[in-house]
Amino acid sequence: MRILISNDDGINSRGIYELAKAMKEVGDVYVVAPLTEQSAVGHAITMKIPLRVTEHYIDGEFFGYAVTGTPADCIKIGIKNVLQFKPDLVISGINHGSNTAINIIYSGTVSAAREAAIMDVPALAVSVTNHRATHFEYACLAAQELSKKVVESSLPTGTLLNINVPNLPKEEIKGTLFTKQGKSKWDDSYLERQDPYGNKYYWLTGSLMDVDDELTNDQCAIKNNYASVSPIHFDLTDHEAFEMMNNWNIDSLKSIK
Amino acid sequence: MRILISNDDGINSRGIYELAKAMKEVGDVYVVAPLTEQSAVGHAITMKIPLRVTEHYIDGEFFGYAVTGTPADCIKIGIKNVLQFKPDLVISGINHGSNTAINIIYSGTVSAAREAAIMDVPALAVSVTNHRATHFEYACLAAQELSKKVVESSLPTGTLLNINVPNLPKEEIKGTLFTKQGKSKWDDSYLERQDPYGNKYYWLTGSLMDVDDELTNDQCAIKNNYASVSPIHFDLTDHEAFEMMNNWNIDSLKSIK
Repeated sequence: MRILISNDDGINSRGIYELAKAMKEVGDVYVVAPLTEQSAVGHAITMKIPLRVTEHYIDGEFFGYAVTGTPADCIKIGIKNVLQFKPDLVISGINHGSNTAINIIYSGTVSAAREAAIMDVPALAVSVTNHRATHFEYACLAAQELSKKVVESSLPTGTLLNINVPNLPKEEIKGTLFTKQGKSKWDDSYLERQDPYGNKYYWLTGSLMDVDDELTNDQCAIKNNYASVSPIHFDLTDHEAFEMMNNWNIDSLKSIK
Repeated sequence: MRILISNDDGINSRGIYELAKAMKEVGDVYVVAPLTEQSAVGHAITMKIPLRVTEHYIDGEFFGYAVTGTPADCIKIGIKNVLQFKPDLVISGINHGSNTAINIIYSGTVSAAREAAIMDVPALAVSVTNHRATHFEYACLAAQELSKKVVESSLPTGTLLNINVPNLPKEEIKGTLFTKQGKSKWDDSYLERQDPYGNKYYWLTGSLMDVDDELTNDQCAIKNNYASVSPIHFDLTDHEAFEMMNNWNIDSLKSIK
């Protein structure tokens, strides 16, 4: 199995190092990851400035390629120019911090896996639920096991698995649940400050409004010390709303002449 | 009706100017838009650097607030700190260039409207199908008409309308169709160049693989000179795959102890 690995925390993060090490037990591992941290960049791609790609070494040993772009950029250029072949699997992570509920929208980690799904490559996004994550054992096991599942099984083309794992020693994790994207959102606010020249600036801050209380939701599963696995796709159409709209009268726009 | 307007082409673009002018016929207009162009930033939000907000004037007249961030940032800080109230409607656009099929994933325009939908505010994203768009009349009419629809009608909370309009004089547009997100994707490639110091750099390029041939798809509708209106939401769960996965055996992860 040929496995392309990326992330959004950057090529120097511990999570991608642990993931690459674990996946070498499953197949041939290729790392193409952002040179710098790209958290919360969503599905941004770089079009107005060119990208650069450099070899990256850890302890004097070749680890992978660093790209001066976003996670989605890394998958595009990783497959098209670095590998020059379609890998059997893409894994993004292991992210330091959860990507559940609304966070999936903002996540660079999930976007890298989604870019792979767009390119018809089976993909996993893997996260551990703490920005100071220290426990990667269960996340590595989940990546190993589920990588086999997505490659051999019949997930629809364009659907990836978004895996979240509590930041706990593996024996304290209750197991893995199949889940849906939760409904919890951020209640944002902006901290106003003044720079030394008297000008205002603003920091995004906020707290998660946790409304998920069923174990079939990713956010609730991790809260209860389960790992969660959600199938995610990029069909954004609200099909129910589409059916409903057939009753709308838009004669004013139907024939404007 | 109190209407917040943003975009991804930046506060100086013609599209947002035409949209603001048109929407003043419908309600009170407030503009909070990126200071600089933010195309293809997806749903990125700014967390590692602070934001700044400045008043923006056109021909000596106050036009709105410019934010040193992304389209999603503009909606968040626009509602929380600039307006300090929830508007009745958010409109993002008018974008110069279409946001159909896979482009919805990368679009800053759609992400601004989606951020509004996340905040439970009815929202429209409006685009004209050419980067050198010159015809905004029909797009303005569509924004005016559909703004009434989304405010008074029963679109589900969290669902926005993504409107695309051919870049044509309004009498050449055949009408408006309700559509779904098309399946067309980009076939990416990277142009390799060398800087004056002998180092390689890469430009993203590519062509759209147009596979949409039904008028119920946004991409096909605009190709046939119809305006398209797709209902878009942020539930990324693949519900069918979720049902299917219940048959998967993941005993190895269910109880790892």
